[in-house]
Amino acid sequence: MNFSSVDVIWTLIAASLVFFMQAGFAMVETGFTRAKNAGNIIMKNLMDFALGSLVFWFVGFGIMFGSGNGFFGAFDFFVQGDYTFGALPLPVFLIFQTVFCATAATIVSGAMAERTKFISYCIYSVVISLVVYPVSGHWIWGGGWLAEKGFIDFAGSTAVHMVGGVAALVGAIFLGPRIGKYTKEGKSKAIPGHSLTLGALGVFILWFGWFGFNPGSTVSATGDDTLVLMGNIFITTNLAAAAGATVTMIITWIKYKKPDVSMTLNGALGGLVAITAGCAAVSPEGAVAIGAIAGFLIVFGIEFIDKVLKIDDPVGAIGVHGVCGAGGTIMVGLFATESGLFYGHGAHQLGVQALGVGAVALWVAVTMSIVFFIMKKTIGLRVSAAEELAGLDIEEHGLVSSYADFMPAMPVSAEAFSGAASEKPSVSVDDAVPVVLKTAPASASDVKITKLEIITNPNKFDALKEAMNAIGITGMTVTNVLGCGMQKGHTSYYRGVEVEMNLLPKVSVEIVVCKVPVKEVIDTAKKVLYTGKIGDGKIFVYDVENVVKVSSGEEGYDALQDAK
Amino acid sequence: MNFSSVDVIWTLIAASLVFFMQAGFAMVETGFTRAKNAGNIIMKNLMDFALGSLVFWFVGFGIMFGSGNGFFGAFDFFVQGDYTFGALPLPVFLIFQTVFCATAATIVSGAMAERTKFISYCIYSVVISLVVYPVSGHWIWGGGWLAEKGFIDFAGSTAVHMVGGVAALVGAIFLGPRIGKYTKEGKSKAIPGHSLTLGALGVFILWFGWFGFNPGSTVSATGDDTLVLMGNIFITTNLAAAAGATVTMIITWIKYKKPDVSMTLNGALGGLVAITAGCAAVSPEGAVAIGAIAGFLIVFGIEFIDKVLKIDDPVGAIGVHGVCGAGGTIMVGLFATESGLFYGHGAHQLGVQALGVGAVALWVAVTMSIVFFIMKKTIGLRVSAAEELAGLDIEEHGLVSSYADFMPAMPVSAEAFSGAASEKPSVSVDDAVPVVLKTAPASASDVKITKLEIITNPNKFDALKEAMNAIGITGMTVTNVLGCGMQKGHTSYYRGVEVEMNLLPKVSVEIVVCKVPVKEVIDTAKKVLYTGKIGDGKIFVYDVENVVKVSSGEEGYDALQDAK
Amino acid sequence: MNFSSVDVIWTLIAASLVFFMQAGFAMVETGFTRAKNAGNIIMKNLMDFALGSLVFWFVGFGIMFGSGNGFFGAFDFFVQGDYTFGALPLPVFLIFQTVFCATAATIVSGAMAERTKFISYCIYSVVISLVVYPVSGHWIWGGGWLAEKGFIDFAGSTAVHMVGGVAALVGAIFLGPRIGKYTKEGKSKAIPGHSLTLGALGVFILWFGWFGFNPGSTVSATGDDTLVLMGNIFITTNLAAAAGATVTMIITWIKYKKPDVSMTLNGALGGLVAITAGCAAVSPEGAVAIGAIAGFLIVFGIEFIDKVLKIDDPVGAIGVHGVCGAGGTIMVGLFATESGLFYGHGAHQLGVQALGVGAVALWVAVTMSIVFFIMKKTIGLRVSAAEELAGLDIEEHGLVSSYADFMPAMPVSAEAFSGAASEKPSVSVDDAVPVVLKTAPASASDVKITKLEIITNPNKFDALKEAMNAIGITGMTVTNVLGCGMQKGHTSYYRGVEVEMNLLPKVSVEIVVCKVPVKEVIDTAKKVLYTGKIGDGKIFVYDVENVVKVSSGEEGYDALQDAK
Repeated sequence: MNFSSVDVIWTLIAASLVFFMQAGFAMVETGFTRAKNAGNIIMKNLMDFALGSLVFWFVGFGIMFGSGNGFFGAFDFFVQGDYTFGALPLPVFLIFQTVFCATAATIVSGAMAERTKFISYCIYSVVISLVVYPVSGHWIWGGGWLAEKGFIDFAGSTAVHMVGGVAALVGAIFLGPRIGKYTKEGKSKAIPGHSLTLGALGVFILWFGWFGFNPGSTVSATGDDTLVLMGNIFITTNLAAAAGATVTMIITWIKYKKPDVSMTLNGALGGLVAITAGCAAVSPEGAVAIGAIAGFLIVFGIEFIDKVLKIDDPVGAIGVHGVCGAGGTIMVGLFATESGLFYGHGAHQLGVQALGVGAVALWVAVTMSIVFFIMKKTIGLRVSAAEELAGLDIEEHGLVSSYADFMPAMPVSAEAFSGAASEKPSVSVDDAVPVVLKTAPASASDVKITKLEIITNPNKFDALKEAMNAIGITGMTVTNVLGCGMQKGHTSYYRGVEVEMNLLPKVSVEIVVCKVPVKEVIDTAKKVLYTGKIGDGKIFVYDVENVVKVSSGEEGYDALQDAK
Repeated sequence: MNFSSVDVIWTLIAASLVFFMQAGFAMVETGFTRAKNAGNIIMKNLMDFALGSLVFWFVGFGIMFGSGNGFFGAFDFFVQGDYTFGALPLPVFLIFQTVFCATAATIVSGAMAERTKFISYCIYSVVISLVVYPVSGHWIWGGGWLAEKGFIDFAGSTAVHMVGGVAALVGAIFLGPRIGKYTKEGKSKAIPGHSLTLGALGVFILWFGWFGFNPGSTVSATGDDTLVLMGNIFITTNLAAAAGATVTMIITWIKYKKPDVSMTLNGALGGLVAITAGCAAVSPEGAVAIGAIAGFLIVFGIEFIDKVLKIDDPVGAIGVHGVCGAGGTIMVGLFATESGLFYGHGAHQLGVQALGVGAVALWVAVTMSIVFFIMKKTIGLRVSAAEELAGLDIEEHGLVSSYADFMPAMPVSAEAFSGAASEKPSVSVDDAVPVVLKTAPASASDVKITKLEIITNPNKFDALKEAMNAIGITGMTVTNVLGCGMQKGHTSYYRGVEVEMNLLPKVSVEIVVCKVPVKEVIDTAKKVLYTGKIGDGKIFVYDVENVVKVSSGEEGYDALQDAK
Repeated sequence: MNFSSVDVIWTLIAASLVFFMQAGFAMVETGFTRAKNAGNIIMKNLMDFALGSLVFWFVGFGIMFGSGNGFFGAFDFFVQGDYTFGALPLPVFLIFQTVFCATAATIVSGAMAERTKFISYCIYSVVISLVVYPVSGHWIWGGGWLAEKGFIDFAGSTAVHMVGGVAALVGAIFLGPRIGKYTKEGKSKAIPGHSLTLGALGVFILWFGWFGFNPGSTVSATGDDTLVLMGNIFITTNLAAAAGATVTMIITWIKYKKPDVSMTLNGALGGLVAITAGCAAVSPEGAVAIGAIAGFLIVFGIEFIDKVLKIDDPVGAIGVHGVCGAGGTIMVGLFATESGLFYGHGAHQLGVQALGVGAVALWVAVTMSIVFFIMKKTIGLRVSAAEELAGLDIEEHGLVSSYADFMPAMPVSAEAFSGAASEKPSVSVDDAVPVVLKTAPASASDVKITKLEIITNPNKFDALKEAMNAIGITGMTVTNVLGCGMQKGHTSYYRGVEVEMNLLPKVSVEIVVCKVPVKEVIDTAKKVLYTGKIGDGKIFVYDVENVVKVSSGEEGYDALQDAK
């Protein structure tokens, strides 16, 4: 018996959890961006995994794990070589490494969201999985020069997350910011996403997946030391995430006066990224410290990137994966119980950590710059301004909307009674109701008909409806609208950027009357709506030339008497 | 070799699944409440886990598992002590217990949703994880007095769920109902949530997580008895959930005439909560019975809490976790094959179960009442009425909306061509089209222009559009509106409460004509829309003073002739 | 010791993952269909699992695994018999088989979505789990005649997916297409779903679950061969999915000019379904080939079913599970390394595979036809046309909307200040503002008041608002509307069907002026909006009789001067 059942089970389940992180990334990235690009983001997340799986098997794995020199493994197409990985069969190790590679690749889509050409993203995604990730991965995990120097990156703060984060940085720089992200004066503007709940679900999924990512990186479950280590990694991973979220919440509470939801979600991820390098080398206390520092890195890092560097990263991928990935790796040099500065072992480990971070960052920055530069000069990196404004779903994928049946931008129902369903209404409507317009072109009513349009606070709607019912008005048309006026909205922040909010949700209630006196309607509305403050709303009065009631064919005064 | 690989793997994977239940709770709670509080609920679910992880490690674990007396473990800050848990290393056991503790804490956020101050929720969440849960946990699982009496609560119907459920009950009482939940006469009103699909996803995630929660509570996978037991627990857990859902569906089908979706989802959860105590002690048949009874408890429990006790529990947390938790624990005294009343073992076990439930409920009720009372008198438990109406997202977190880019409350697009993107349209528009208004202030057209506004059933829209095209009208503006009239909507129930529904979705189609005769438009519309029933809609006719076509600068009659 | 810890752990965790696929199906099916049926789909997915769990335990398992003859196991109610399954205790094997059975059942709900009576679906769901699936399952996995012939269906391309797919086909035929799916001329129309993000999440969940479905079907983790096999199955499963997605993307890119998102998601699933039969028998290269062919089957299969057969399958279940299930099973006869035609082993295996596919398809088609025929003739299969148009949520479940608090079809807020919350505004409004209408019925203003309604491209809104502010107008009412005119929308495809899109999102900005000259407003709007192309929008001018400002009681000219 050469292979270990428990090692295989442990590694394969961990691989499944790490795969599931793809769903987490997809949800975070789509939730934090706009609805008009939702399908495009989903597609990028799906395809970077699909393409990455193919090319990592094709050549990436060989480059990473083939015996070669300290800088490069080997070309071993379709993994034909003979490898030994403890008590793991080769395919078990291969799938585990494949899902790690795909994680690095998928990080980039968030930073490049909402403006990247789909074809260019596919090409980028092939290149990073084919060569960029495997080469630096070889240095760290493939027995390369960093491994020999004693570089500690247990589950990949640098090998996976920082590689993705630096590629994201380069990509976002080459692309430039989204239209509308910065004012002419260079002031950053918030572009809120379309579903924080999906974004939050994604964060929970990622946290869940991290319990495969970090503890699974033991790729073994044999021996007392390993078993204790597995438990310790769960503890350090979880505590760092908890500390990251908590510290981020506190900082945003102080800085923006209120605890920021999306930034705190990023904080949890920052803690997870930061602990990934040292999860097997630090104590629980060290993990809390690393997570807490990641909280600082998240808030100030994201703000620095957004406001000072003016790099537009829609989901904070550079801050989470790049900054916290680098920071977490370096902090191993401080907090590692057996080699860290804070445990009295001098600065050697810290130096190695810094060297590794610098070398990998340089490698990725240079190679990805070349890739993005070539793409920019040939097929182009960015969609046109018109395409960006219209949205990538429709322009890049011919998808009307990811929420076609849901969005206000589509009619409630698009169906008509058509041939296939023979359940057509059988009533003959041809001569159902004779139309006798008293005059043409329709100003037929003998009495004055008036439309009142009441624009007011949605919270007042129920009270208004009841009051109108009480004076005999039951028919009204209600629309959700936006009011723009001098009534300023709340000051609010989105990911550290102040949100301008002078469009407020209002409700428009239209009432057409001829029997009930207009004055009575206005009086009643005023009584219900009055608080004396700006924002009580306005009532507009219009003349109506005629009204036709379809079901009876009645017009004018008569058409309005069905109000019972 | 002291530790067991299979025990460790089994326990750690179970811990991961139990962690993932946090995502389930977050989705259930946000889906069943309103969009304006979605970010707040997410944040509470995130932070109770983050804070709970930290404080349970800090002191909670020691209280629960430290050797002390029957009522209290020990103060063992940061888990420094020496513990033995079968073949599990301490950190493995610690993470498993941490995720259980967090489950109890997170239950409460649902019952207190939509009106609790965020700071108060954070404090509550620290207290329950720090001391309330660990103390009663010590009684049951830490070798305390209930354990010694033979109290059976295998995976925590009482230790976890009822603790959360009772805390939820106390919290909801101290808070009072949400504004608008009860009429002046005390009649309960339905306040539907904003996403049943997310809520349902949450239920599926919880069910999935329960396969870690219950079978994982063996904390061992060694020995034939344990292996059979693991399988049995899967079966009892799954059957109880299935029976809970099925019975709930049938009851609501009978009671409300139609099978209720959200209540049935609760029914599945009720079955899961109820079987948790006895999952290792009852037969599959017993599990079906327990699940079926939980279905009854859900429907009648939630209605009783809502309509009789008039306690406002937005997501049914008290019913699911409190009532079914207590009920499920007590039913072990009936259905346990080796000690239950129905299996001929007398009422002893039943008495112990009832005692345990009563003692734990009392402990939680008293301590949580003190906690909530102190908070109410100091920092306050509840947001102001204005904050509650505006929504906790904006008021507590400065978050415009969790769906800022998605909701009708925001413009479709907020971007403008700004400096950062130099892709501004280059056409000079300064003198693009000379505007020659024939008269001021604009009633320029020589011919009468008329606007027709057709308010009708959305299902008719396609037919209407086709008919209008056929008479030469192609331009129209379509808006989704709500019609309020004498056409009553369907009677419907939401979680057992009748929903008043006299606002119906309508579509407003506005057509401006001057060439096509108004009479022809009205005639055509009537033919298409007529069925003879109320709800066919109305046609309003207005005078239009002028029309300007931006692209050509044409006005009046000419501006409308582009209809091709 | 009779049982194996690692076998039990492996099988139970796989069972959990396969259970979680229920969430995946629920999300895919609800996301790809319309919002008005979202709760109904969820409920069907929940209940087919709940009912299926109960009846499979009740009698299905016995039929499938009982020793009987080659065609039928045995009636063994509530699984009382004595079975041996390697080193697995019976309950472990039972739960594993239960979640597989439920997968077959749940496939059907997608194809029958949006028009099936709920009661009929419940009955169907009981029948398939009770007898249809277990009988063919016995042939394949229960030691029946197909097993004896050497039929290879490792994890159930045929036993699970094709059974579901054929039942879906029969169901969709008996039901007929949804209203509006086909024009009178028989042309297929696209009916887009309501949430592609939820649909995509479902696909990721399914892919994740498949790592339990296929590798878990070893139901063992003992011995080197099995351990290698487990890894290989991960690899083949993942590569086939990746190839399916990639090839589907490429085909749609060529066929529809743009890579189609929802079809590519289906392509990943098609690859997974197709590899399921042969995942343990083919090489990685073979898996890529099978996945790639599945990509073709998906695109052309779904189009063929939709456009030629004119069978309405809202989520593509027949194509994904039926066509790829059959195709994948047959391809084992080509690609199996030890018996396949392409590996020089002749056509014997291919013949067996084709025979198995044919026999199972026939069995399911005949039995399900009988079931659906009887239901159609008795209780009815399909809801009425009116119910279908109104939506199954309200009609079948009394659920106003799954997104009641979210959809534009509901008012933003339904709460009123009611008794329970005593926080009513205390200001007395009875005589707050005396209303002095200058004349009745309200045409009071001395100066002319004019309303301008600007209908334009949403992208222009910000610029328009700024320009209006610049000329002193700050008050406006903004509504998201749909414009229908001669400006053609983009050509777009949804699942291979061209989407007619002549309703375009527009924004309606209403401005009421009497101080600012109308001409100035029109000029300004024209300057901002002008590009010279159709789609710049129109400006309508109306007379306003009066305006009342609620907070001050001012009317006419005065009411509009608060614009500051």
